[in-house]
Amino acid sequence: MEIRKCAAECIGTFWLTFAGCGSAVIAAAFPQVGIGLVGVSLAFGLTVVTMAYAVGHVSGCHLNPAVTIGLAAGRRFPGRDVVPYIAAQLVGAILAAGLLYAIASGAPGFDLAKGFAANGYGEHSPGQYSLMSCLLAEVVLTMMFLFVIMGATHGKAPVGFAPLAIGLCLTLVHLVGIPVTNLSANPARSTGPALVVGGWALAQLWLFWVAPILGGALGGILYRWLSEEPSAAVTGVSRAAATP
Amino acid sequence: MEIRKCAAECIGTFWLTFAGCGSAVIAAAFPQVGIGLVGVSLAFGLTVVTMAYAVGHVSGCHLNPAVTIGLAAGRRFPGRDVVPYIAAQLVGAILAAGLLYAIASGAPGFDLAKGFAANGYGEHSPGQYSLMSCLLAEVVLTMMFLFVIMGATHGKAPVGFAPLAIGLCLTLVHLVGIPVTNLSANPARSTGPALVVGGWALAQLWLFWVAPILGGALGGILYRWLSEEPSAAVTGVSRAAATP
Amino acid sequence: MEIRKCAAECIGTFWLTFAGCGSAVIAAAFPQVGIGLVGVSLAFGLTVVTMAYAVGHVSGCHLNPAVTIGLAAGRRFPGRDVVPYIAAQLVGAILAAGLLYAIASGAPGFDLAKGFAANGYGEHSPGQYSLMSCLLAEVVLTMMFLFVIMGATHGKAPVGFAPLAIGLCLTLVHLVGIPVTNLSANPARSTGPALVVGGWALAQLWLFWVAPILGGALGGILYRWLSEEPSAAVTGVSRAAATP
Amino acid sequence: MEIRKCAAECIGTFWLTFAGCGSAVIAAAFPQVGIGLVGVSLAFGLTVVTMAYAVGHVSGCHLNPAVTIGLAAGRRFPGRDVVPYIAAQLVGAILAAGLLYAIASGAPGFDLAKGFAANGYGEHSPGQYSLMSCLLAEVVLTMMFLFVIMGATHGKAPVGFAPLAIGLCLTLVHLVGIPVTNLSANPARSTGPALVVGGWALAQLWLFWVAPILGGALGGILYRWLSEEPSAAVTGVSRAAATP
Repeated sequence: MEIRKCAAECIGTFWLTFAGCGSAVIAAAFPQVGIGLVGVSLAFGLTVVTMAYAVGHVSGCHLNPAVTIGLAAGRRFPGRDVVPYIAAQLVGAILAAGLLYAIASGAPGFDLAKGFAANGYGEHSPGQYSLMSCLLAEVVLTMMFLFVIMGATHGKAPVGFAPLAIGLCLTLVHLVGIPVTNLSANPARSTGPALVVGGWALAQLWLFWVAPILGGALGGILYRWLSEEPSAAVTGVSRAAATP
Repeated sequence: MEIRKCAAECIGTFWLTFAGCGSAVIAAAFPQVGIGLVGVSLAFGLTVVTMAYAVGHVSGCHLNPAVTIGLAAGRRFPGRDVVPYIAAQLVGAILAAGLLYAIASGAPGFDLAKGFAANGYGEHSPGQYSLMSCLLAEVVLTMMFLFVIMGATHGKAPVGFAPLAIGLCLTLVHLVGIPVTNLSANPARSTGPALVVGGWALAQLWLFWVAPILGGALGGILYRWLSEEPSAAVTGVSRAAATP
Repeated sequence: MEIRKCAAECIGTFWLTFAGCGSAVIAAAFPQVGIGLVGVSLAFGLTVVTMAYAVGHVSGCHLNPAVTIGLAAGRRFPGRDVVPYIAAQLVGAILAAGLLYAIASGAPGFDLAKGFAANGYGEHSPGQYSLMSCLLAEVVLTMMFLFVIMGATHGKAPVGFAPLAIGLCLTLVHLVGIPVTNLSANPARSTGPALVVGGWALAQLWLFWVAPILGGALGGILYRWLSEEPSAAVTGVSRAAATP
Repeated sequence: MEIRKCAAECIGTFWLTFAGCGSAVIAAAFPQVGIGLVGVSLAFGLTVVTMAYAVGHVSGCHLNPAVTIGLAAGRRFPGRDVVPYIAAQLVGAILAAGLLYAIASGAPGFDLAKGFAANGYGEHSPGQYSLMSCLLAEVVLTMMFLFVIMGATHGKAPVGFAPLAIGLCLTLVHLVGIPVTNLSANPARSTGPALVVGGWALAQLWLFWVAPILGGALGGILYRWLSEEPSAAVTGVSRAAATP
């Protein structure tokens, strides 16, 4: 387990959280010309597109505990590396939330009560979706996200396109799900803003660990079943970590 | 005919219907920052981009009875596999519509009368386009969609880009046609929401089988004429199924 | 000069005009959720992305008299094929405008006086830009469009990406220029709607032949100077026609 | 140091400034259907995507003094070529601002006091962000932009995709940062409009040289550390200049 893999995961998850949540906090509702949820969805996806081309060859560019666990469930990533990867991702996401707070709070209209892109359900869901709807949405969307990750990094998929397919899948998942939960599909991305917002955001954070991880594991297992890969294919360094 | 091809078509069509229609039902008209028809068009296209990279090497990633029939008309897909493919696509689309209903109905403002992304003509067309306009639009847009699919998966087209070209073509087709019919170009995608909405949506469903299939067949035939491919090139497993 | 090259240009220019102008006429200003100029820009670009992957290997996918003449000026396309290419493009664009009229006129609110996506200057410029501004914009934007086409199809550019680069360049050109002239950069695309609208649109059509062709020729010559290609490299079948 | 490398940088930076700032000045706030900050972000990114495919093989397509200095700091570009590259970039950006003024001033509502896409902080920040927030945002966003450039042009990254990754990274950086400073990340792009606007824009221009160059150098150094490249790998012509 090289230190630079963890560094890549930390920097990459910093980028996903800083630029993804940053687009939501700074630009989504800017008067007249704001980027809206289309722009936020595009921003989240492009954090993955850009980082996967930049550090995919270093760490596999998971940037997300649900991805790391989903790939382990799909036998593409060694179980012993799961904890250091997730730790590095959390450090990056928390640094990102802190830096975003430093920048965003320098504007006259800034107000943490607007949510700071934290994820929530029930009365803290943007569209006030019920807990059950939020749980379902996060599980299904993360499951399909992992399914696409497993497929696009499969040995028979076209070479070089996985970062595009995976990043654009994150865009897609946001296009559907922001009104439901502000869309997590990524426990690290959820944890950063929740620590800044505190209160309700921390109280609801459990869902954004449970649902994405459950969905991610299901997605990894579903694709493995579909592709009938022999389990013996797992070696110390996963293919997913090396391919994109 | 392997079972996992049908599974891939079922999962992929689930994703197209769930995420495409889901973006329309959940996010298109969200107050202030809704994704609008640009976001919905992008979402439908990205379902195909992501799935074509993930399972293109398994089933060819049709996700659409009009594509399956159009490729058969263009002699890229064996006729004997048409029915199982379409059956798998229908199962995926119907599951997607049910799950989308379960999630979307968990929001305070949910109302099936808003349409649930079902396709319609005349008074049920978003822009109240006449039946003749809707028929023309669906035939022409699906014809050109198949023309692009046939061309982008041709042996002389650049390798690996077909999923992008085809998915972005679906985005394009939606950018033009949502105000006309809510845009189908895909009988399976139309059937899922129609079963949930019932009434007028079921009564108008015939058009979204007839027009896309007619258009798809014309597109397949048109490209075959243009590329002057020898009909003898058709074998048991189609090139389109293997290429993307 | 094969007939199927002309057929490919005709079908491709039909697609560019039908789907590009169609997105503007049908969807740009749809109430609440319209696609706006971003959506129209994306639509025009995607017509080229999709067709270049589909028929680039047949005809080079010019779809535009300014491209055909610009490539000839850049010594990438044989002069003797210029006229049949332009004729085929015009047929496609006129068919597209007619079909778009048939579909769009089936909606209650349809009104040709809204412009039908015809190009104009002065009082018929969307933002009422002066003739001089419109001339400058069309010349510069078409010049840079051709510069990018020449560069992205150069033998040292990455293989397979030219359709993306060229199509997205057309999107970019529209993002800048729609408020100025409704953006032409393509005399065939301008001619189709002008024939339907008549009157002022026909009277102003001259500018959208002169400016794009002038710009296109300048762009072809500029890139040829930059890349210092030996003029002897021109053969019967151009590289641009074979590469994308 | 070939003249045509400088010509490519000049033309490319002209394009970035003309089309990027042009989309903001002409189309961002067009009534009803304006492209908004999403469209402007897309436009800036696409200038790089298109030029990197067109002239990446000539000059490396930096188009930006912060990129040139960042790549030098990351030991991908020879120090002796930094000054001519930056000079060429400045010439291109200034020509672009002049031409944009000539076109934009031909519309009835044109008013330089709206900003002409010049970058600013404090009371001239679009969202009135403090100097400290603006400094932080420009440093961090340019740092990550260079990090992605270094990574996507690394020898182990997928071949041919760097222009997409880098251009889309510029889109991403704009999606986050336009409300803060109108987003520079590029001293040349800032200098062009500042010369046209004069006054406050020139007085604040220092920040948009200092912050992007600082950020760019940090990004180059950070990636070099991460990738553990031997410094001996630097030769007369950089890999970054040759790869994209």
